[in-house]
Amino acid sequence: MSEKIIPKILAGTRDFLPSDMAVRNKVINSIKNVFIRFGYDEIDTPAIEYAETLLGKYGDEGNKQMYVFEDLGGRKIALRYDQTVPFARVTAGNWQNLSMPFKRYQISKVWRAEKPQKGRLREFYQCDIDIIGTDSLVAEAEVAKIMEQIFQTLGFTNYTIKINSRRFMNSFFKNLNISVEKFPSILRAIDKLGKTDVSTVSAELRNIPLEESQIKRIIKLITLEGSNTEKLEFLQQSNVDLSEMKEFFQLCEFFQIDNRCLSFEPSLARGLDYYTGITYEVDVENGSFGALCGGGRYDNLCSMFTDKKASGVGVAFGFERIMLVMEQLNILPAVTLNPEVLVAFFSKETLPQALKLANEMITAGINTEIYLEQAKLPKQLRFANKKGIPFVAVVGPDEARDNMVTIKNLSNSKQKTIPTTQVIPYIKGYITN
Amino acid sequence: MSEKIIPKILAGTRDFLPSDMAVRNKVINSIKNVFIRFGYDEIDTPAIEYAETLLGKYGDEGNKQMYVFEDLGGRKIALRYDQTVPFARVTAGNWQNLSMPFKRYQISKVWRAEKPQKGRLREFYQCDIDIIGTDSLVAEAEVAKIMEQIFQTLGFTNYTIKINSRRFMNSFFKNLNISVEKFPSILRAIDKLGKTDVSTVSAELRNIPLEESQIKRIIKLITLEGSNTEKLEFLQQSNVDLSEMKEFFQLCEFFQIDNRCLSFEPSLARGLDYYTGITYEVDVENGSFGALCGGGRYDNLCSMFTDKKASGVGVAFGFERIMLVMEQLNILPAVTLNPEVLVAFFSKETLPQALKLANEMITAGINTEIYLEQAKLPKQLRFANKKGIPFVAVVGPDEARDNMVTIKNLSNSKQKTIPTTQVIPYIKGYITN
Repeated sequence: MSEKIIPKILAGTRDFLPSDMAVRNKVINSIKNVFIRFGYDEIDTPAIEYAETLLGKYGDEGNKQMYVFEDLGGRKIALRYDQTVPFARVTAGNWQNLSMPFKRYQISKVWRAEKPQKGRLREFYQCDIDIIGTDSLVAEAEVAKIMEQIFQTLGFTNYTIKINSRRFMNSFFKNLNISVEKFPSILRAIDKLGKTDVSTVSAELRNIPLEESQIKRIIKLITLEGSNTEKLEFLQQSNVDLSEMKEFFQLCEFFQIDNRCLSFEPSLARGLDYYTGITYEVDVENGSFGALCGGGRYDNLCSMFTDKKASGVGVAFGFERIMLVMEQLNILPAVTLNPEVLVAFFSKETLPQALKLANEMITAGINTEIYLEQAKLPKQLRFANKKGIPFVAVVGPDEARDNMVTIKNLSNSKQKTIPTTQVIPYIKGYITN
Repeated sequence: MSEKIIPKILAGTRDFLPSDMAVRNKVINSIKNVFIRFGYDEIDTPAIEYAETLLGKYGDEGNKQMYVFEDLGGRKIALRYDQTVPFARVTAGNWQNLSMPFKRYQISKVWRAEKPQKGRLREFYQCDIDIIGTDSLVAEAEVAKIMEQIFQTLGFTNYTIKINSRRFMNSFFKNLNISVEKFPSILRAIDKLGKTDVSTVSAELRNIPLEESQIKRIIKLITLEGSNTEKLEFLQQSNVDLSEMKEFFQLCEFFQIDNRCLSFEPSLARGLDYYTGITYEVDVENGSFGALCGGGRYDNLCSMFTDKKASGVGVAFGFERIMLVMEQLNILPAVTLNPEVLVAFFSKETLPQALKLANEMITAGINTEIYLEQAKLPKQLRFANKKGIPFVAVVGPDEARDNMVTIKNLSNSKQKTIPTTQVIPYIKGYITN
């Protein structure tokens, strides 16, 4: 025999066997169905693109985590790193054909040349929605509503949609007479609040440098407590522009978003240098893998490709993290494999009847597996049990002679011999329950 | 402004905007639903694997068409070239966990470093099913039934499932006293019959060399005409082993496969050196892109990885070719985009009522798009028309005051003003029709 290859895969990539796949499909479909209910349509882009296109946004820094290689024609190619750059590319390239505002979802794999660890993979799914071609704040509120619907549908009870706004933060900093070029450093310092303590953030702000009075006000802002209304009322005292925030929260009320899951968090600084308005992040109590969803308003998605102004709102749902946290919280959905009935035969003579029955059940919309081998019944029952198939339809010689079928219900070990013509209504009575 | 990147993609890769995507999703779901009805479960494997694993089967020859590259850790990585090798790898690696016979489907992208042309892409979908862990011919017949069901469901009327068998061909050649080492050359010569004429095939057989009497019998075999029964009856006269063929056709009868779409074709030589029993290929009259589906019985899928004998049957449906031929034959399914209703408002005052209505429709399971901008009604109607959204629910100031909504049916340009509470049953009456 020739040398064998070890059947292994790259760390950070995964195989999904049927039972894992069924759970993943169920969760992904729940997310997708919410997108569809809100009128989003699906698009797809290639997994491989010109490296120049995908690297554009990330420049040299992205290079390290992006799979980039040369093809035989000497073209520099990269694997899709996220869904945002391809979406910008496809929007810029199809500007004329798209009905604006354009709402799309994309659920596909992305690749990262990372050192793999729990929650950090080399190949994983992202679920993105974007609304492009509108400045209306209704878009921001709709996206918040979608987040609420998705996390509710998936069975999360303690999740928070954290909200902040780049516009508001700018206004706040200006009000403190801080010059614009210091804003990015402030945001980077604020961003560390979750991972470090207030004094470290203060020290970093001091290094920018900022004055003590400015630092005090910023620290006060990012540690504000209370309800959204209380926070807004407090900020009202300063001269800061709160109009966007107020309108956003009002629209969320019109959308009937549960107010308890929405939290105005001035410490939220995620990618505030990319975003230009409202930003979001969804966190789950007891979740240990960081934000499960994030995004916000951007003013110029396609600037790499065109001068056309593409303002919009986009968020990405971190599917793999959602799966990990659902597992932790023990709220992954229960699933069964596809077959609902196993058709069993144990002698060649009854094959015609067994296959005819299988055919009829399949045509009637019952997922039917035919046990392909001529095997003893206990073996076939063990097979059905192991796969969790709820019913076994036995077409033995006695049954075949009398035009009967014995149905075994594996959940309660009961069995019943009924006329062949009654099998379909009998099974359907159970599986539609 | 900085230099712009041209928003282009690699030749042989494609973007799919919503309307293309809707058609593709509908066709893929039709195929998938047949797999599910027959009790197949889904698996997924990584798009990137160790090059050693994926190249194993193809050796140096495959190298040229496979995207192979080195990652930053110096590992040689390749993009999935087909779904067969990853399936063999995953089967070998999970032998203990799988219930045998194991039936799975996989629908995913594969990549080929090809020179792109019509019907030849660098990135495309394959839809595979395999049954592994059984020698039973019932498996072969089930797979033929699935082919019939899929092409019927997709609306094909003139398709042929061509059948041959490596076992039968071996027996035929042995019967002519041809030595085994000549079989592969004969199969390669026969394989050319579709692309060339009988005299060219004869000349090639002569070069192997074969005797004139042997050539005559082989040419007679591969040009046999008539029904399957007639062909089998004719072959009965020689001493060749027809037991497998006969049993297969009988099982197909038990499966009630339409006999007119099954054709015994001794000239079918596809990959007969890989397959060990029944082989299939589905051809469509007037289709100009070659076979739409192909596969067969193999005896040792996992030999690269293990000594365990993994006998099974597998076929791949060429999704992209199927799409091309459906387009040619004008049988692509009609589709609509996701939104079923557009909610229109044209002054901020009615936003609360508009969003409340949208919310209620979404909760009731109606796919609802909210026109996000405050725009004049004709603009919103044009938007709905362009996207093919069948209904527009107008929440104007008069309507909002009276708790009414005006429903415009864009298919017949009729409109009706009804109480808000009646909107959901009204729309549902249409969209479930």
